[in-house]
Amino acid sequence: MEQGLGKASIRLKEPVDIIASASVVGTKEGQGPLGALFDIVGKEDHFGAKTWEEAESNLQKEALSEAMKKAGVQAEELRFLYAGDLLGQSIASSFGVSEFGIPLFGLYGACSTCGEALTLGALTIAGGFADMVACVTSSHFASAEREFRFPLEYGNQRPLSASWTVTGSGAFILKRSLDAEGSDGMSRRPRARICGMTVGKIVDYGLKDSMNMGACMAPAAASTLLQHFADWGCGPESYDHIVTGDLGSVGRQALLDILSKKGIDLSEKHLDCGMLIYDAETQDVHAGGSGCGCCAATLSAYLLKQLEEGFWKRILFLPTGALLSKTSYNEGKTVPAICHAIVLEGIGK
Amino acid sequence: MEQGLGKASIRLKEPVDIIASASVVGTKEGQGPLGALFDIVGKEDHFGAKTWEEAESNLQKEALSEAMKKAGVQAEELRFLYAGDLLGQSIASSFGVSEFGIPLFGLYGACSTCGEALTLGALTIAGGFADMVACVTSSHFASAEREFRFPLEYGNQRPLSASWTVTGSGAFILKRSLDAEGSDGMSRRPRARICGMTVGKIVDYGLKDSMNMGACMAPAAASTLLQHFADWGCGPESYDHIVTGDLGSVGRQALLDILSKKGIDLSEKHLDCGMLIYDAETQDVHAGGSGCGCCAATLSAYLLKQLEEGFWKRILFLPTGALLSKTSYNEGKTVPAICHAIVLEGIGK
Repeated sequence: MEQGLGKASIRLKEPVDIIASASVVGTKEGQGPLGALFDIVGKEDHFGAKTWEEAESNLQKEALSEAMKKAGVQAEELRFLYAGDLLGQSIASSFGVSEFGIPLFGLYGACSTCGEALTLGALTIAGGFADMVACVTSSHFASAEREFRFPLEYGNQRPLSASWTVTGSGAFILKRSLDAEGSDGMSRRPRARICGMTVGKIVDYGLKDSMNMGACMAPAAASTLLQHFADWGCGPESYDHIVTGDLGSVGRQALLDILSKKGIDLSEKHLDCGMLIYDAETQDVHAGGSGCGCCAATLSAYLLKQLEEGFWKRILFLPTGALLSKTSYNEGKTVPAICHAIVLEGIGK
Repeated sequence: MEQGLGKASIRLKEPVDIIASASVVGTKEGQGPLGALFDIVGKEDHFGAKTWEEAESNLQKEALSEAMKKAGVQAEELRFLYAGDLLGQSIASSFGVSEFGIPLFGLYGACSTCGEALTLGALTIAGGFADMVACVTSSHFASAEREFRFPLEYGNQRPLSASWTVTGSGAFILKRSLDAEGSDGMSRRPRARICGMTVGKIVDYGLKDSMNMGACMAPAAASTLLQHFADWGCGPESYDHIVTGDLGSVGRQALLDILSKKGIDLSEKHLDCGMLIYDAETQDVHAGGSGCGCCAATLSAYLLKQLEEGFWKRILFLPTGALLSKTSYNEGKTVPAICHAIVLEGIGK
């Protein structure tokens, strides 16, 4: 009965379709290499709000609205919503998705939350408990700086290992695959299919530097990736690309180093959403982008597009999250991390 | 294929067993009416830690360890863990469950998180993706006061509508029902069975008083309860008791009033974990107990015991959560709320 493989992995008997998605980003992301691909680029980063937190809520609201519009669905048709963000008590989500009135599962996996949402959403559909659900996650540079680091007005200097929290949100509409029950009269081709996942565990190498989250998260990415390869009996050759969420350049090197010691060369296959979304040379982001919105917006705008258009056939999407808070940081605790893996396949042109 | 009823409800074809559970609480809870029923009562509220946040992590650690011990299972046998708490970025959970090494879904639903965890854990099993999972949630009076209100040292006066955050944690081991696949040689009788659920949506009546969370949460409890009655085609008569999480005495009255206007008299059937766990007359808790640990510890120690021993046959468990943060409060935002409903049945003596 169990559709599982190893302890941490599930291969879905019936893949779940991502029928539509949307990305909304801020000005800096709009000026980056993926700028032209995002659905909505804010003219300024307040998104019509008076506070940064409300601005982030508006990001989620716009992303989910746009994804629903593309899918041609109303809120009443979405059985469940899986949402999360980086702020304390996930207020960006609570105030962002409230008015849709969709039964809600609030999630917290730091910047890995997009992977957690896609996993739980897909499992709910694959288990037969829903026909269609939505997932949305977000982050905002200014609300995250206030939440985790310093007020913007303080103008602190950031080390080169620091990442830049992406102002952005990605929303995804998941639906039971047409293959499973035959045509329902909907002619829309899905953007991609979720074929399975490997759920991450917390990995803590004892690092304490919140200005080097790439290094804190790389061991979690390596752990989930190795677990995935073991559970599925596969390796890097099984994927066109293996795409981490927000390791940045420092975390990427740490990941490659850890895997190299296991005899795995990931240098050719690896991409990182945090490195894709900004131009590190010209955009002053240091190690790269980060945040719940980083991998979500990049997945919607770029990764799914590559799958949809047939440039890639199969990728492993690995959102990474650093499970710290300002309280844990100030109390001298480590920065534990987590990473979830999602197997995504295109359905060809 | 869908096992659902109405939009927000699911009736499981194969109920999921709660095979074991454990509760760990602080000194004040140990002195309350349920004191003798908790598995572990701390001698003092630090639980061996130097900080309140770490104390709360230790609550989760002890609760999960104790539940695993009762079930006779090792961490490796638990396929997934669903965990959450009230603190920013859920650090009580991250630092509490890290060492178990179980693939983790971090959840945030404020004080409703126990209901969210039981829902997602049960769906994962019912969907065929796991044989056994664990759920754990916690709260701690001192870490919550620091997180949401004032430092303890400030000694602020609390209005009578305020609740007292429970220092406690409840952990639950969920397993595929023996009925589903025949005996597996395990002679243990489950404590109760999860038969279905109604997933809550965010309800916001525009209230802003964080010292009256019962009133903020009562509309969410009413919304989920009415949705449940509509979806399942049932009413209060279908349950021995309908047990909200932490409305307290003020929230209880608000709930009874809202339902009374709909022609439903819940006064006889209704219980509230926040009112069960303390003696309001002698323990200076004002409206009652609250927090992620309130309903979790009460469910494990008292509600499941009543079901297990055959005093009750069927209850509706309704954990309630207020989705505020100190940032949203300080920015003048409302206190939105959410409530999830779980149908629990005893299996008779």
